[in-house]
Amino acid sequence: MKQPLRVGIAGLGTVGGSVARLLARHAEGLALRAGRRVALTAVCARDRTRDRGVDLGQATWHEDAVALARDPQVDCVVELIGGDEGPARTLVETALAAGKHVVTANKALLAKHGMGLARIAEENGVALAFEASAAGGVPVVKTLREGLAGNAVSQVSGILNGTCNYILSRMEAEGLSFAECLADAQRLGYAEADPTFDVEGFDTAHKLAILTSLAFGVALDPEAIYVEGISKIAPLDLKMASELGYRIKLLGVAERTQTGIEQRVHPTMVPRISSLAQVMGVTNAVTIDADAVGELTLIGPGAGGDATASAVIADICDVAAGVVRPAFGLPAARLAPPERAPMQRHEGGYYIRLSVYDRPGSAAGIATRMAQADISLESIIQHRARTADADPTGRSGAPVPVVLITYATTEAAIREALARIDADGHVAEPPQVIRIERE
Amino acid sequence: MKQPLRVGIAGLGTVGGSVARLLARHAEGLALRAGRRVALTAVCARDRTRDRGVDLGQATWHEDAVALARDPQVDCVVELIGGDEGPARTLVETALAAGKHVVTANKALLAKHGMGLARIAEENGVALAFEASAAGGVPVVKTLREGLAGNAVSQVSGILNGTCNYILSRMEAEGLSFAECLADAQRLGYAEADPTFDVEGFDTAHKLAILTSLAFGVALDPEAIYVEGISKIAPLDLKMASELGYRIKLLGVAERTQTGIEQRVHPTMVPRISSLAQVMGVTNAVTIDADAVGELTLIGPGAGGDATASAVIADICDVAAGVVRPAFGLPAARLAPPERAPMQRHEGGYYIRLSVYDRPGSAAGIATRMAQADISLESIIQHRARTADADPTGRSGAPVPVVLITYATTEAAIREALARIDADGHVAEPPQVIRIERE
Repeated sequence: MKQPLRVGIAGLGTVGGSVARLLARHAEGLALRAGRRVALTAVCARDRTRDRGVDLGQATWHEDAVALARDPQVDCVVELIGGDEGPARTLVETALAAGKHVVTANKALLAKHGMGLARIAEENGVALAFEASAAGGVPVVKTLREGLAGNAVSQVSGILNGTCNYILSRMEAEGLSFAECLADAQRLGYAEADPTFDVEGFDTAHKLAILTSLAFGVALDPEAIYVEGISKIAPLDLKMASELGYRIKLLGVAERTQTGIEQRVHPTMVPRISSLAQVMGVTNAVTIDADAVGELTLIGPGAGGDATASAVIADICDVAAGVVRPAFGLPAARLAPPERAPMQRHEGGYYIRLSVYDRPGSAAGIATRMAQADISLESIIQHRARTADADPTGRSGAPVPVVLITYATTEAAIREALARIDADGHVAEPPQVIRIERE
Repeated sequence: MKQPLRVGIAGLGTVGGSVARLLARHAEGLALRAGRRVALTAVCARDRTRDRGVDLGQATWHEDAVALARDPQVDCVVELIGGDEGPARTLVETALAAGKHVVTANKALLAKHGMGLARIAEENGVALAFEASAAGGVPVVKTLREGLAGNAVSQVSGILNGTCNYILSRMEAEGLSFAECLADAQRLGYAEADPTFDVEGFDTAHKLAILTSLAFGVALDPEAIYVEGISKIAPLDLKMASELGYRIKLLGVAERTQTGIEQRVHPTMVPRISSLAQVMGVTNAVTIDADAVGELTLIGPGAGGDATASAVIADICDVAAGVVRPAFGLPAARLAPPERAPMQRHEGGYYIRLSVYDRPGSAAGIATRMAQADISLESIIQHRARTADADPTGRSGAPVPVVLITYATTEAAIREALARIDADGHVAEPPQVIRIERE
């Protein structure tokens, strides 16, 4: 049997500890699968004293991540520090340049510096593997990179953030507000103390950037992503979605359109019967549409120490087996420059909830503005306010919610029509706009 | 760039034709992904004249599959002939022994001879790849073989036959009989003229045998599989399932139990909220339960020329990239001998539909027999016959359907109790027994 693959882990938190334990527990199986043993020879973590449930006595402890990247006893560096700059970036760049394979779960680093890192990996003939960086334990990176070589992908859409899906699932099931569900998510450890990164869609955007590159053979282009979070979703929107046969999910969607690759993250109405609509709680899911295979959906845990570690171990096993392929499917220099499809040209159906002053002419005025922007309405639903101070005669002009569902139109048309409706003084609040993905 | 991978395709039917077209269409992408070109240098098919939508002028035509396997201009043989003996077997054995990689979609061949073929492949240092053999375009083979190296799998369960899922979906949606839906499936090309192989579960069993080996690191053991098809499922069973919060699916299930590996194919009641219950029509799906990752579900097309070809191309691309790993995850000699868990010791809940003579003592007699076998009943549902000749007084003793749902018990206990109930003369027909998979 060949020499063992010598692995160094930087970062021994929840995921890193689990990786160390799984390497020990599956040592024999990994050796048989890869044709060589995998040995944990170095680690780097702040706290040496914490019990991680595994004997690390054989591993060299490094104070400094860069020292681990330069350790001649390490063939493969596992980066689990996190962050798109600082030690994580230096560690990965140093390791690749030193001819060491790198396995990482760091979506922020990849979204920002993935192209440069892929180039360094290729120049040095080593692997840059990152199954754990998107959708956690779900093998979507491998599927896109290796499993669909005979396909042209037309769309990738996914529930890529468990925190958001948990909050939306509970809001729908229990009729609670965003703030109430967020507080619960924080109590249960599903959301950070500062939840902005998750609930405003930035985490989903990082993951989407990675999947877009893999799916379409284009260079990473995270700055092109339109990003909108879930903090403005109201219980009424979830109720209306349900009445209309939809569920609201925070989706990351990348799509090949006539104008280029459209990348967007936003709350989305998906048909209740679709695979993605069934995915509740912290679970992640990705649906891929491709010309040969048709529609594939992968569902599984998007976070958690063991689930993420499962993806890291799969990458380590590939590295041990000698698999060195271009990080993003194609060689970095051959990835097409991203052709951005501007969000203004997005086409699709829209759910628009307006808070309309209930007085003569409002409805006609709104309908006229939509027609002027060439928007056809599939349905109009008016739910009268039922609060104590609502006016039962409907003559006071107090605002009432009105929901419009449009046929396919463009983002630009919607924005134009809503600006005019606002200027006309028909609405009391900024409109709620939720894009619809039909089957 | 390295020398091209020279591919020979044996069998140019629906799948083979699609493979040839996809190889041509994605020639450049495949070369970039694999680091070398893939060239179609030889084919073997009966009909030379049929237009397959691709120029085969550069390929050598072989009359005989074995000649293709021996062609020195071929590095990788794609076997799409089918059948577990005859030309397909000879072709694959000859090719592997001649040091050529083999890609195949042939589940029957693999279920029967997979161990021997894996050994020949290893001895010759070549790949034996078969993503297309189970669940068609769904990348479940790659996921089990490579993606879960850091896991111990506890269960794999799947909808692996599109014909059966189509028939059950239509029976449920439209209240039609098995025979009516089968006839429709045949008309639409979803079922063969002789549907036995599909509807009686044998096709699912072949696929399950392959997945079991990959999931548990055990030698293939198709003969250990308990197989029961869907031809006896009645519309009433689907109606009852729906009332009870279940759907009926033909599942292949492999499970690690205390007595060994249990492998079974049978109609199964799955909770309506489970991922597998959502899968309707000809679509396939596989759920994997594993200790690190938790639950993964993969959903996609299980058949069709292009979807199957998509999986074949992914295998070819892996071969072109130089990936040669043990066919069933572990080296054939290191796969554990299968420890068969006998079906009699299967534990789970049961749905039992009896046709009971409606006379004094029947219910008590049945309940007594269940209790004697230590079976606890979760519910008893009696639907009185509503046909014209039914006796409204209920005193005629004409048979009425009675459904029992049991708590977890064993197959042996159920069989014993039902044999006694039959011997007691309480029932007019053989009972309908459907196993329940709870979450």
